[in-house]
Amino acid sequence: MDLTSISSPSFLKSLNNEQLKELSEDIRSFLIEKLSVTGGHIGPNLGVVELTVALHRAFNSPVDKLLWDVGHQAYVHKILTGRANQFDTLRQYKGLCGFPKRIESEHDVWEAGHSSTSLSAAMGMAKARDLQKKSNFVIPIIGDGALTGGMALEALNHIGHEKTDMIVILNDNEMSIAPNVGALHNILGKLRTHGTYNRAKDDLEYLLKKIPAVGGKLAGTAERLKDSLKYLLVSGVFFEELGFTYLGPIDGHNFEALEENLKNAKKMKGPVLLHVITKKGKGFKPAENDKIGTWHGTGPYKMETGDLIKSYSKAPSWSGLIAETARKLARDDKRIVAITPAMPVGSKLEGFASEFPDRMIDVGIAEQHATTMAAGLAVDGMKPFLVIYSTFLQRAYDQVLHDICRQNLNVVIGIDRAGLVGADGETHQGVFDISFLRHMPNMVLMMPKDENEGQHMVKTAFDYADGPIALRYPRGNGLGVPMDEDLKSIPIGSWEVLKEGTQAAILTFGTTIPMALQAAEQLKQANISVEVINARFIKPLDEEMLRSLQLRNIPIITVEESMLEGGFGSAVLEFYNDNELQVHVKRIGIPDLFVEHGDVNQLLEEINITTDDVIKVVENSIVTTNRYISS
Amino acid sequence: MDLTSISSPSFLKSLNNEQLKELSEDIRSFLIEKLSVTGGHIGPNLGVVELTVALHRAFNSPVDKLLWDVGHQAYVHKILTGRANQFDTLRQYKGLCGFPKRIESEHDVWEAGHSSTSLSAAMGMAKARDLQKKSNFVIPIIGDGALTGGMALEALNHIGHEKTDMIVILNDNEMSIAPNVGALHNILGKLRTHGTYNRAKDDLEYLLKKIPAVGGKLAGTAERLKDSLKYLLVSGVFFEELGFTYLGPIDGHNFEALEENLKNAKKMKGPVLLHVITKKGKGFKPAENDKIGTWHGTGPYKMETGDLIKSYSKAPSWSGLIAETARKLARDDKRIVAITPAMPVGSKLEGFASEFPDRMIDVGIAEQHATTMAAGLAVDGMKPFLVIYSTFLQRAYDQVLHDICRQNLNVVIGIDRAGLVGADGETHQGVFDISFLRHMPNMVLMMPKDENEGQHMVKTAFDYADGPIALRYPRGNGLGVPMDEDLKSIPIGSWEVLKEGTQAAILTFGTTIPMALQAAEQLKQANISVEVINARFIKPLDEEMLRSLQLRNIPIITVEESMLEGGFGSAVLEFYNDNELQVHVKRIGIPDLFVEHGDVNQLLEEINITTDDVIKVVENSIVTTNRYISS
Repeated sequence: MDLTSISSPSFLKSLNNEQLKELSEDIRSFLIEKLSVTGGHIGPNLGVVELTVALHRAFNSPVDKLLWDVGHQAYVHKILTGRANQFDTLRQYKGLCGFPKRIESEHDVWEAGHSSTSLSAAMGMAKARDLQKKSNFVIPIIGDGALTGGMALEALNHIGHEKTDMIVILNDNEMSIAPNVGALHNILGKLRTHGTYNRAKDDLEYLLKKIPAVGGKLAGTAERLKDSLKYLLVSGVFFEELGFTYLGPIDGHNFEALEENLKNAKKMKGPVLLHVITKKGKGFKPAENDKIGTWHGTGPYKMETGDLIKSYSKAPSWSGLIAETARKLARDDKRIVAITPAMPVGSKLEGFASEFPDRMIDVGIAEQHATTMAAGLAVDGMKPFLVIYSTFLQRAYDQVLHDICRQNLNVVIGIDRAGLVGADGETHQGVFDISFLRHMPNMVLMMPKDENEGQHMVKTAFDYADGPIALRYPRGNGLGVPMDEDLKSIPIGSWEVLKEGTQAAILTFGTTIPMALQAAEQLKQANISVEVINARFIKPLDEEMLRSLQLRNIPIITVEESMLEGGFGSAVLEFYNDNELQVHVKRIGIPDLFVEHGDVNQLLEEINITTDDVIKVVENSIVTTNRYISS
Repeated sequence: MDLTSISSPSFLKSLNNEQLKELSEDIRSFLIEKLSVTGGHIGPNLGVVELTVALHRAFNSPVDKLLWDVGHQAYVHKILTGRANQFDTLRQYKGLCGFPKRIESEHDVWEAGHSSTSLSAAMGMAKARDLQKKSNFVIPIIGDGALTGGMALEALNHIGHEKTDMIVILNDNEMSIAPNVGALHNILGKLRTHGTYNRAKDDLEYLLKKIPAVGGKLAGTAERLKDSLKYLLVSGVFFEELGFTYLGPIDGHNFEALEENLKNAKKMKGPVLLHVITKKGKGFKPAENDKIGTWHGTGPYKMETGDLIKSYSKAPSWSGLIAETARKLARDDKRIVAITPAMPVGSKLEGFASEFPDRMIDVGIAEQHATTMAAGLAVDGMKPFLVIYSTFLQRAYDQVLHDICRQNLNVVIGIDRAGLVGADGETHQGVFDISFLRHMPNMVLMMPKDENEGQHMVKTAFDYADGPIALRYPRGNGLGVPMDEDLKSIPIGSWEVLKEGTQAAILTFGTTIPMALQAAEQLKQANISVEVINARFIKPLDEEMLRSLQLRNIPIITVEESMLEGGFGSAVLEFYNDNELQVHVKRIGIPDLFVEHGDVNQLLEEINITTDDVIKVVENSIVTTNRYISS
């Protein structure tokens, strides 16, 4: 059918199974074709086609609340709720968001991006329903990977205790972004292979009748034996113990099974967990055969062959550079242990893992545990290398502060995807880490100007022995600069003059350095001489350089791809203020709002962080400063 | 025995059970006596006397690592490791810390204060041990309350999967700070009442033999029936499913049981969970009989009667005032729902709970879940009132940012214990929340000058309908000011001039207002006229007032009991800088370090936040500004 003609999911109610299957195939073809151009989360969405169709058929969205955990698997939901015609703009500037978005549709009742929030949110909505004496269903859909996140486990514990009516769909595809780890994963594995338990019920009852009736002192024991059979008759003892009714496992691509089980679930009181087995990438061979997570989310690809269309870059990816440098150092330093919360592929730690399998720990989606485990490793003399995306480090704020910084432990934090990340949008922008790490005592925070400095910073971090040190680096590739053969430590808190100048100084770091150099170059054409400084240490600042700049009576412009509130520029203001040094400082950075999805350059333009903006601010600052000096 | 003569726990090895019991009684008497003077966490520590003695006897600390989760139950550990003679200074300035402290003793291998960190830290230490080919034991001791914290559950999931050698002591006293909630609590309850399972083992084997041998199609089922018996023969199926060997439950006050089970645990491979039942407050009747958590931690008390010696205050406690005002508003607004993560008593929500039992949700120690559940409630039209201590809100940083602020949901956050808290020390100081909330878009953050304004701010928060709003208030009591009968909303972002002046202006809020008024009063004696402004909105700032102050060419002094990095003063600097307004600003606040335990006034003196400091800074600022203006 023409998917763009869908305006609401209500049409699903009148379709028969054959039609549902046809529709599913149409959706698959649509996704494979559209995403081959735009890129996107192809694997997760191909896996939930039938599940999403079945859910929208069984429930009445938006009265019934469908909550998509993480949210990258909501494309089918978007198609069924009238947004197929927007897929050409998927994840693009001002286009369709890659995650649920409340302003896009009344069917998007909950926004996510970060993992493991859906059960807690569902508990809130279920409580709201009960208090308002409404009778709608609340249906969080959560993956087996997201289930290991601490807040999802907190929610399970609470929901099971309160016996709140809720239908949790456990979308078990045996991998989230990378293959899953954890005891829960083993439990699910057992459930999958023992999926025939339910059929054995009759057999069991026959066997039990063979147990003779007993009395006296054995009676209690016999009673308990009988009790214990619930562990056989109902599988999913883990979830049953937590207070859930466990249904499944069922084939998530089979409409009959889905329909029957959803019907049953709707009749039940209390929380139900329906265990649905799906195949990530279903219907697209390259994605189906993916064992490591390449097809979780991709850029454009060739539909016919499944070859990814990569933008050619001579420069190494930042993730690869940092991980491989750590690997190099780990050869001589047995204390180095890498830790990832479910991002071995994204953080390019595969090489490290294959060379040092014992010293690579993937804890699954569990940022808090990863961070405090790193602290534990450091207490006992190891050099943990905690690699974590900036946006996900937010989950471990307290662990970094209370466990690592407060105990001043020697943990190296690799903050991947720092700065704007682009297409994933506002839930994933790594723009808060400077503001939330800078006020933590004992923290050292740095960002390299290019991949050569990046490798030296990895060395710097592992050489540093006085407490926590974090190295932030952006998404994407380096600049393609020549790489030094030998690694060297950079003195903590030392900045570097990249280009000398006499009328103004730009302080910046990381991704905005090229912009600053370009601005300086263009200003030179207008006979304005601007100094550009690589402020590679965000904490501590290079106080000596700041003092010498102040003596020169020139305006200072700070540029950062990071929140202005409490950010780097704010640190510069604080320094000058504390030391009662008069300087004209002008800050460029991200204003007090959430930056949506889109191409990074378009986003930077929207928030006025471009070469032209830097030029304008420098020019104005020089005028203002001259006025001030001459006044 | 004379407990102050103990220098190391090694003497325990040679004691017999009678002597251990005597020692335990001595420790109990010592604690009851000492804490009657200093106050402290009496309940938790009386509960773990025998357990701590047995652990130090069974293991070799510090080679074997004992990790005390939360850490408030480590007093017995401190006594046994040579610190009995410091108990007169417990929780006092420069005295013995109420929590494990690495600089105090080599036996304090892990510091805590916040809950649920011990398992992750233990996993780090166990990994470090294995990588270094050492053979020490790692023994985290965690309460049943702390076990529901998300990161503890993340850790269980990871440890069980990796089968790492570790002996987890589950100290189950049926309540942490308040009575525990959650499905895990129910599971533990079942284990407690079915504690005789192990004895039934022989009976079961007899019964099983009665099941006839079967073949053919029934064979598989019979096999599964046999498998299932592990759920009977070993209790603790929940933990067994997670990959732990479950031992227990045992009586945590019985040395024979403790010794035998610890001996067994030491022989086992992989992770073991020893379920130990203890009685909080054991041996001190008032604490034993405590049902709500009064005796979790107390101030001084009368040993003989158990009467708490309360410092008399006419003023209401801050927690009580805020909670009771919300209760008042909840009478007319059915949408108000209070949420606490295990702090119904500390946050004084008992009245709210008894009047609106359906609208009061205690989720247990689960700050992340509490926060995102609040978001879910708001999505569906309720007005959630999330009450949480400042220091524990750190655990929910990402949930506040990603779930509440990003979706701009109308959640009211009551930030209790904001500012220095005193005796609990550096793990509990509520001094980071301004710095970590201020850079979150959409957030409104305020703090009242006194309890009358406090009640109006509660009203303000619930009247506000444009997004999240947080109200921070300190530990302790209000000022005893008269209370208005009618509640009124305060315009968002509006400050208030408390005292007019012409030569300088102090901008401050909350607890530091009396200090500023006093400074202004004293300066008046010296003929210096200082304005004092109640900067009750930390975000947004009162920009109009800031502009008008700038026009007056007087220095501005900001005073906050909060981190200077990214704090309120920093916001003022940012505002003036962004608007290119020249002002001489001087900031007073907490420098870049962790503030230890002690009397709040002593702490404030140490970090230079006193009336005298304010006076000095005002005087200097006036001189500097005059010099600048006349130059």
